[in-house]
Amino acid sequence: MYKEQENEKSQLKGAQSICFRESPYLISSGSVAGSKEAEGPLGKLFDMTSQDDLFGAKTWEEAESNMQKEACVLTLGKAHVKPEEVRFLFGGDLLRQGIATSMGIESFQIPMFGLYGACSTSGEALALGSMCVAAGYGDYMLAVTSSHFGSAEKEFRFPLGYASQRPPSAHWTVTGSGAFLVGTEKSHVRITGVTVGKIVDYGLKDSQNMGACMAPAAMDTIMQNFRDFGRDAEEYDRIITGDLGYVGQDILFDLLREKGYDIRTKHMDCGITIFDQKTQDTHAGGSGCGCAAVTLSSYILPKLRKGEWKRVLFVPTGALMSTVSFNEGASVPGIAHGIVLEHVN
Amino acid sequence: MYKEQENEKSQLKGAQSICFRESPYLISSGSVAGSKEAEGPLGKLFDMTSQDDLFGAKTWEEAESNMQKEACVLTLGKAHVKPEEVRFLFGGDLLRQGIATSMGIESFQIPMFGLYGACSTSGEALALGSMCVAAGYGDYMLAVTSSHFGSAEKEFRFPLGYASQRPPSAHWTVTGSGAFLVGTEKSHVRITGVTVGKIVDYGLKDSQNMGACMAPAAMDTIMQNFRDFGRDAEEYDRIITGDLGYVGQDILFDLLREKGYDIRTKHMDCGITIFDQKTQDTHAGGSGCGCAAVTLSSYILPKLRKGEWKRVLFVPTGALMSTVSFNEGASVPGIAHGIVLEHVN
Repeated sequence: MYKEQENEKSQLKGAQSICFRESPYLISSGSVAGSKEAEGPLGKLFDMTSQDDLFGAKTWEEAESNMQKEACVLTLGKAHVKPEEVRFLFGGDLLRQGIATSMGIESFQIPMFGLYGACSTSGEALALGSMCVAAGYGDYMLAVTSSHFGSAEKEFRFPLGYASQRPPSAHWTVTGSGAFLVGTEKSHVRITGVTVGKIVDYGLKDSQNMGACMAPAAMDTIMQNFRDFGRDAEEYDRIITGDLGYVGQDILFDLLREKGYDIRTKHMDCGITIFDQKTQDTHAGGSGCGCAAVTLSSYILPKLRKGEWKRVLFVPTGALMSTVSFNEGASVPGIAHGIVLEHVN
Repeated sequence: MYKEQENEKSQLKGAQSICFRESPYLISSGSVAGSKEAEGPLGKLFDMTSQDDLFGAKTWEEAESNMQKEACVLTLGKAHVKPEEVRFLFGGDLLRQGIATSMGIESFQIPMFGLYGACSTSGEALALGSMCVAAGYGDYMLAVTSSHFGSAEKEFRFPLGYASQRPPSAHWTVTGSGAFLVGTEKSHVRITGVTVGKIVDYGLKDSQNMGACMAPAAMDTIMQNFRDFGRDAEEYDRIITGDLGYVGQDILFDLLREKGYDIRTKHMDCGITIFDQKTQDTHAGGSGCGCAAVTLSSYILPKLRKGEWKRVLFVPTGALMSTVSFNEGASVPGIAHGIVLEHVN
């Protein structure tokens, strides 16, 4: 079994978690979103939105890269930090071979680690970024993720012109990118711990019902976080999943109730929050690497900064699949990473 | 600019490197390869080869997953370490949405970080794994990568049945998977430092000449490593690139000569080493996330263990592209991560 270990910088907690002793700060963040997101409930909160979902580019992929670039520029600008001061960048997106990230962040010339965790990638990037800061590997780390409705439909379903039909359990991929500067410089939000996710597979095969595919992973990571840190739902102001949507939220509540936990009064889901289901025709809710990222940047962090929320468990969720894997009949396992965010004066 | 920083565990070196004070050990490794690799110069050195390139599966993707699983089992078995003792797994492959890794390592139930760095992913995984061990985040980290000729041809070119033609500058994707256990338990090889790569783009657009696309990134990382550690080629017994192949090797020598460095007597390339170009019809050489990984496990590490080589710079190289990006006319930038491996008694 795992050895409980301590050093001056961090403490290994239980099976999957790290509790930082010198917790890194979440210094600044930036959010860029598309036209549909601009019309949604969080529309006025994003740093930048564009009525042109191509963001000045000729392709959806380049548009997504442009959003990532812009999100990084905004984040660095707010903190008055230059790209050459950032030690490492952690980035990812949904596209094959992570091309939106490679093309998006190239010009910053920051040493980089490319990630893939499906829609959980913002959690993965924040976990690794904060772990590197807490380890003393640099004063600034940049975490960035993105998704784009146009590029994701082309990647996973059909090009937009084909007008594919969507069952009610389907998600609407968020057009957006969020970037986060994590470091040693003081701010009002600290990352005090992380719970690294495992792949959880309940055997579901419906790629049009990703909420159901991801809910078991969210349950696993939330429960593991409770156990590792000796907490329950009462000790968090909010427990915020990435993009379970309405279907996945119900399943998460049921799965946790079976295990003796009730998080209903504390739960929020970025995929539910970002769109108005009634007027925006978004079915189960928003999804994509950008969904949790822009919601964290525009809605969650301001509340933590002001102290309206003192401690939040942020749990981006991902469905691990490709068009090849689901066409070959493989199941769609999920993964979720937990990030503990706390207000500090 | 970067602040030179020190703590008890590591020292930030120059712009992109970390020098570990308490260097993690590379405890054990495992290599699994296909039938063509078994007939090549390293054929007898792999832990496991299969005449059936499907590795008992029905699809190339599942075959690749099976190789990853087998490589991890071998690596853990050699060290008598159970999966539940491994704190984090770092893994990746070439396929869209990293599906070979997700499906391959799921059964171990190790908290995991999915990576994408094209053929440089083994370097990325070893860098993050050793950084986590050096930071005190756990006693054991597992790094695993893979590639498969059948799944890669289908992903990037055409399904094998189409028999696509290959220009002489093209690479042959290695069917193989290598896994590495990094930790605090003593062995005869330590990871003493890492140089994290930047994306380097010379504007090349020929996806059938990946050696040329990746050579500038290899040059950049090797030079950065020399500068950051205050070393030159003389201080390494070998400088080993991942899969530049014959074309990329020539370009690397030229680029470094322009900068005043000559590594010709110290250079080795895994893509050149793994196949016999004359008899195996492999054109520019081997490539893929598995190429550098199985060569490190089967050929490089034994020499380091015995002390035949005292210090090696291992530099897996990756070409960042997808079928979508190159069909849309984007260039193919490269990235390379440097891992300093040293013999210890």
